[in-house]
Amino acid sequence: MQHLSTSGCTIQCFLVFISSSESLYLNSRKLSMPVSQPHCRILIAQKTSGGEHVVLFMLGPSSESGGRGRSEEDLLLAAAYVSDAQYNRNVPFETSPQAIRLYYFYNHWTMRTVTYFFICVDLALALFEEPAWLPLPFLVTSTAEMLCLSVFLGRLVHFAKVTPQAVFWKDTKNICIVVTIVLTLIDVIIYGSLEAVAIHGVRCTRVLRPVFLMNFPESRQIRRAFRSLRNTLPDILYVFLLFLFSVLLFSLMALKLFGDRGLHTAEGAPYFANILDIAFELYVLVTAANSPDVMMPAYEFGWWYSLFFITYVIINTYIFMSVFLAVVYNNYRKHLKNEIRTLAYLKRHKMIEAFNILKVKVGTEFVVTEARWRRLVKVVAPDISSSHLELLLRTSDEGQKGHVDKTNFLRLADLLNIQVVTINIKKHPLEAWMPRVYQSSASLLIQRVVRHRTFVWVYDVIILVNAVFIALDETNPFISYAEWLFLFLYVIEILLKLYTFEPRAYFGWKQFWNWFDTLIIIAALVATVANTTIQSAGKYSSQQILDIVLILRILRLLRVIVSIQRFRVIVTTLINIGPTMLTFGGLVVVVYYVFAIVGMEVFQGRVRFFDPSSSSPDALACGNPALKDSAFARGRYCRNNFNDLASSLVLLAELTAVNQCFALIASGFALVTHQAAKLYFIGFHVVVVILIVNIFIAFILEAFFVAYSLEKSEVETAIEKKIQELRLGVQEEEVQDGRLADSVDAKDCGFSGDEEDNEREALKGLYFRIASRKYRTVDALLQQMFESEIAPEDEGPSLEEILNLSPGSSHPRKPSFENSA
Amino acid sequence: MQHLSTSGCTIQCFLVFISSSESLYLNSRKLSMPVSQPHCRILIAQKTSGGEHVVLFMLGPSSESGGRGRSEEDLLLAAAYVSDAQYNRNVPFETSPQAIRLYYFYNHWTMRTVTYFFICVDLALALFEEPAWLPLPFLVTSTAEMLCLSVFLGRLVHFAKVTPQAVFWKDTKNICIVVTIVLTLIDVIIYGSLEAVAIHGVRCTRVLRPVFLMNFPESRQIRRAFRSLRNTLPDILYVFLLFLFSVLLFSLMALKLFGDRGLHTAEGAPYFANILDIAFELYVLVTAANSPDVMMPAYEFGWWYSLFFITYVIINTYIFMSVFLAVVYNNYRKHLKNEIRTLAYLKRHKMIEAFNILKVKVGTEFVVTEARWRRLVKVVAPDISSSHLELLLRTSDEGQKGHVDKTNFLRLADLLNIQVVTINIKKHPLEAWMPRVYQSSASLLIQRVVRHRTFVWVYDVIILVNAVFIALDETNPFISYAEWLFLFLYVIEILLKLYTFEPRAYFGWKQFWNWFDTLIIIAALVATVANTTIQSAGKYSSQQILDIVLILRILRLLRVIVSIQRFRVIVTTLINIGPTMLTFGGLVVVVYYVFAIVGMEVFQGRVRFFDPSSSSPDALACGNPALKDSAFARGRYCRNNFNDLASSLVLLAELTAVNQCFALIASGFALVTHQAAKLYFIGFHVVVVILIVNIFIAFILEAFFVAYSLEKSEVETAIEKKIQELRLGVQEEEVQDGRLADSVDAKDCGFSGDEEDNEREALKGLYFRIASRKYRTVDALLQQMFESEIAPEDEGPSLEEILNLSPGSSHPRKPSFENSA
Repeated sequence: MQHLSTSGCTIQCFLVFISSSESLYLNSRKLSMPVSQPHCRILIAQKTSGGEHVVLFMLGPSSESGGRGRSEEDLLLAAAYVSDAQYNRNVPFETSPQAIRLYYFYNHWTMRTVTYFFICVDLALALFEEPAWLPLPFLVTSTAEMLCLSVFLGRLVHFAKVTPQAVFWKDTKNICIVVTIVLTLIDVIIYGSLEAVAIHGVRCTRVLRPVFLMNFPESRQIRRAFRSLRNTLPDILYVFLLFLFSVLLFSLMALKLFGDRGLHTAEGAPYFANILDIAFELYVLVTAANSPDVMMPAYEFGWWYSLFFITYVIINTYIFMSVFLAVVYNNYRKHLKNEIRTLAYLKRHKMIEAFNILKVKVGTEFVVTEARWRRLVKVVAPDISSSHLELLLRTSDEGQKGHVDKTNFLRLADLLNIQVVTINIKKHPLEAWMPRVYQSSASLLIQRVVRHRTFVWVYDVIILVNAVFIALDETNPFISYAEWLFLFLYVIEILLKLYTFEPRAYFGWKQFWNWFDTLIIIAALVATVANTTIQSAGKYSSQQILDIVLILRILRLLRVIVSIQRFRVIVTTLINIGPTMLTFGGLVVVVYYVFAIVGMEVFQGRVRFFDPSSSSPDALACGNPALKDSAFARGRYCRNNFNDLASSLVLLAELTAVNQCFALIASGFALVTHQAAKLYFIGFHVVVVILIVNIFIAFILEAFFVAYSLEKSEVETAIEKKIQELRLGVQEEEVQDGRLADSVDAKDCGFSGDEEDNEREALKGLYFRIASRKYRTVDALLQQMFESEIAPEDEGPSLEEILNLSPGSSHPRKPSFENSA
Repeated sequence: MQHLSTSGCTIQCFLVFISSSESLYLNSRKLSMPVSQPHCRILIAQKTSGGEHVVLFMLGPSSESGGRGRSEEDLLLAAAYVSDAQYNRNVPFETSPQAIRLYYFYNHWTMRTVTYFFICVDLALALFEEPAWLPLPFLVTSTAEMLCLSVFLGRLVHFAKVTPQAVFWKDTKNICIVVTIVLTLIDVIIYGSLEAVAIHGVRCTRVLRPVFLMNFPESRQIRRAFRSLRNTLPDILYVFLLFLFSVLLFSLMALKLFGDRGLHTAEGAPYFANILDIAFELYVLVTAANSPDVMMPAYEFGWWYSLFFITYVIINTYIFMSVFLAVVYNNYRKHLKNEIRTLAYLKRHKMIEAFNILKVKVGTEFVVTEARWRRLVKVVAPDISSSHLELLLRTSDEGQKGHVDKTNFLRLADLLNIQVVTINIKKHPLEAWMPRVYQSSASLLIQRVVRHRTFVWVYDVIILVNAVFIALDETNPFISYAEWLFLFLYVIEILLKLYTFEPRAYFGWKQFWNWFDTLIIIAALVATVANTTIQSAGKYSSQQILDIVLILRILRLLRVIVSIQRFRVIVTTLINIGPTMLTFGGLVVVVYYVFAIVGMEVFQGRVRFFDPSSSSPDALACGNPALKDSAFARGRYCRNNFNDLASSLVLLAELTAVNQCFALIASGFALVTHQAAKLYFIGFHVVVVILIVNIFIAFILEAFFVAYSLEKSEVETAIEKKIQELRLGVQEEEVQDGRLADSVDAKDCGFSGDEEDNEREALKGLYFRIASRKYRTVDALLQQMFESEIAPEDEGPSLEEILNLSPGSSHPRKPSFENSA
């Protein structure tokens, strides 16, 4: 710690997070300090965007002159609570100063990125291990795996230092990781020694690799998805048993009805002669994958037998599959609600903790002084602009009494979560540079034309015409000339827009479609030039790059969608769902990975793919005599194999979109191994199609319903009211319609809002607006709803009670018409 | 009307509904009249179960001596209102006595059955018309159609006489029917005359036949399903356009990516060369029907191209299909709620009308006297038992003041809807016949064994063992002997149960599973005997009958399910959904019928089916040279054709479970006609799979959620309280567990509860319980929920307002956490 003295004020340079055990470079930063401060109570926290160094400059006589060290530590602890509340982190941490610093470091984005990177490396190792897509020697892969394991171990040790010992060893997550690391080590050693004596073993712990993806505390979303899955299991089990029972019942009937008829399938095999075959065929019929082939022999024998199959499909496909969805969806809703309730109460709990640390008694009530509040916010959100901070303070301290009361303090985490866009009105640089020309009547006419709705429509039509040209034959020279014309038109469009609108506003943050447009045009220009050069040179190479650019060119059509209001709503809801959809990505990766590893161990090399041009006789039987003349080989399915990770994943993706291929592939792999191999495919179907796909559908349903039934939250309303009061509001529609886009810059611009008297004037060039509500996740929206239903003075249940909340138990509610229907 | 005099009382025999225009036979009934009544205020209404004759016996001096005729008409009008409220009928009818009688007749079940019968006949005509399953001469079918039309016209005229003229002509339903009748007449005449001069025309109005199924006022459920469909259309249209746009975008990309590669499909055709073909293939890929075939050539070329198809499937199959479901489900919920709100208000409205007709002033408030109330109930529910009537009166007139107040009167329709089971405790006939033997210790031991849980379990095991035996080879003589043993065991089981439990209770109403058991055992006995006889005679004939009996024997396995509690819950929910599922049956019939008729006109005779044993060379090409060597013919799909109604419907059912067949069949029929034929199949997919199947799923989801979030309604609670108060209650569980089943008889038993003083004694041998809540439809449950939220004194909005309720408008509510998540 360094103490500097400047003009009677003590500058306390507080270097916090340089814990000796970690190697972080402290970047020196230029500190623009307002030296001649009349009121020396201001504290500015700075944070490099790349590091976690919090540098606190205490200017002037601090109101808390005694026990400064203690006070700073309190502030850090409170900030940790507020930050956890803001991001809904729920890691119990020790409150000693050392632990808090470690905790800050633990939550730092670099640490998380490193962990995720090594998780990806660990998972990707399967690409290079036998059976490999790109074989690498065992020494290389095992070294890489050791490196990953040591990083995971380091992360775990770091976590153990942050969290209390008792809590650490009670958490199954940590035990899981430790066990997996130990098992993997043993496995690698055994496999390595066997390999050394040239015995080929099985690396069975590869299946455990997704454990790391699931169990690091950052993977909260993935864990929640898994919890959904696990919670649904008991309920779905009974329905599944009933469903299996129904399949068996129908199998028995089919055996009795068709077994003795001497019917034959289209392949000439006996039809429905064996109860196990029938059960498999009927199970596949549920996925409709072998409909109507499975029915044709019976249908040809007598049309009334089709009724058997139709009844079967109605009961087992339509009704049972809907019941699965209903059970999964119901559980999903129930547990989602419960988790969100828990999160909301934990958040409230943390905010109360933070308040209790910082509170001082003023009059009869406990409050947090304005100075401390400012310092807290600066620690929690070091990148916050002063104007934004001022706005938050105004919202929190409505009476401008110099302190924030408890109710308002508890809202701080929500306030910080609300994205307030600071809009700075600026002139077009051309106007500043040559005002005469820019303001001439011709120039103004151009600007009016570009701003007119028709301009957008004309270009929409041009894009559509371009799409038609793309669809037409490219070899026609007229069409390839037309492509040049279109490119020229697009470039003109962008130039015109840059002329009319302020360039920094045009390429501002969140101006996604402008960036998108420009990039695609540049890419298309490059591609067309490259394509023409290559074609004129008579060669056709680097196809992949051209492909990507081609796709981008077609993606330009998306622009048309966005200019139609009705479509925009749907698209934004879909984009909104995006982030949480990635959660399911994680879930799917885990399940696919496990199935792919198992599949590779069982089926590798059984089916081989020959190049289409190959004339080898084995090519017709996928390199396996057992497949000779099978439907699998005839359908040219040899490419669908488990010979490397990429192929396995593609195959599993095909199986997910269950179809014809499901029956063919399952039968094919059963032919090359054993009939029991079908169980692998049925297991995959149950886990992925019945569970995961249904949870995915439940999630999309829920997201749409929440989006449909939504209004602004109470906190947002408070901020908006304040913005309106300060007459700094901009309607969102105005910005969207581009009416303001020519003159605003949606970038933060620091201004010194620390002097309260001239603040109004300082704010004058600025406008705020609340960032679009649409870009928020379902969880966040639901949590807001629930929080607005907790009374501000309600402190919530105790910590134990919160952690033991169970669905339904906490809110014994009467079902009402509105919420049940 | 006849007036009879007996012992100082006037018996008024009131024959109501014998309207001269209708031919109903009046069955004379034995009337058991309590002649020596001390209080002559009792009125008994009798109704033959086959007819609508309401015979009212007025015994004793009526309290309303003046204007009896008027009073009776009032009573009938009020009863019509109450009855409409009870069954949620919403037909506006004229209030003149003549019209009310016609209205009663209009609602009579025979009239409705006749109408439905002729609707079925009309629809079934397509089986016998060209292209026919069983061709009949045009004269026969046209005569049958004329008969149907005249019945429909008669029904419509009847309705016109009941309803006010202005309302009748405003209703599009009626206009639809009239227009359809006229068009059909014209069409039949034109077609007939063309046929007479040997020109083959097209019977285009056959497509309109489902209009009758949809538009007769009894088909409220089907109309509601259609309304759901129609209401969903605007919202789904935009999503669908977006979806189509996405398909086209991907088609363009596919064309550019794969068009110039010179790839070939497994059939050797050029791969992805034409934008229209690509669009069709990709549309089919959404249904996953041609996955992974459509992808294989590109995948073989380079594995990264599989990413294109996987992205496509994720976006268009998973996300868009889920969004379709979300939109449909959201609309379904919204409109369902609105309709139920309207129904509930209309019901309240009708009950208020009825009250206003019957009310008299007692003291300061308007009430309905007990005598009038009794007469009303007897008219509305002529089959009600006296004990049940008494119970309802006790519930309605709690203070026993001799009259029913408004609040209680309004509940009458709900009270009548609650099924109260009267349980009469009886002795086992054997006990009465030979008490010594029946009470002997051996006999008691048998009874104890049979009543024990283990007895059920033992027989469950026996059934399962039997299932294994069924699955085994039947030709083994040991197994066919075992079948006799099992039959013997089952017969023993039934005899033991009949010995232990009271036979009338065992075969009582709603003892579904007992009936089921016995019937299956008898059928199995008959079948096994018949089978043995036939087999020993060396013949194998009447296979269909044997098939059905075989299936029944396997269905016995269902018993095992029902004896497991967890399964029973799911099964009862499914059974509960059953009736409304039939609504969807109606919807599906309408859509299938229209598509089948269109399909038959377009595709008839294009594809022919040859017997599998046929050696004709045409058999390999389904009788059409265009299909030679096509996948359609190779897959032996010739049986899938539009050559008669039955085949068409089976084909459409196959298409509904979209799959491999979808692409094959669409391509096959495009080959024999024109590429545009694919539009027919895509249209079918959009209507059935995207709309109807999603509405079906929405309905099942809703049904399950309502079932999950349900408690007893307020009205049921009131009745149950009264039952408890009178100490006549039986817990449902007791009955289910069979603890009472040996001594109770769930049959109504008339007892004279008209003398209030000795009522308690008279009730002594009786127990009531509320019939299981599980067997109620979703609509009814939702309506109950909503009604319990209307305050009892709330009269609801005016009739106009009710009819113009729109979703959302009536209840501008704040979304809350509980109801949105």
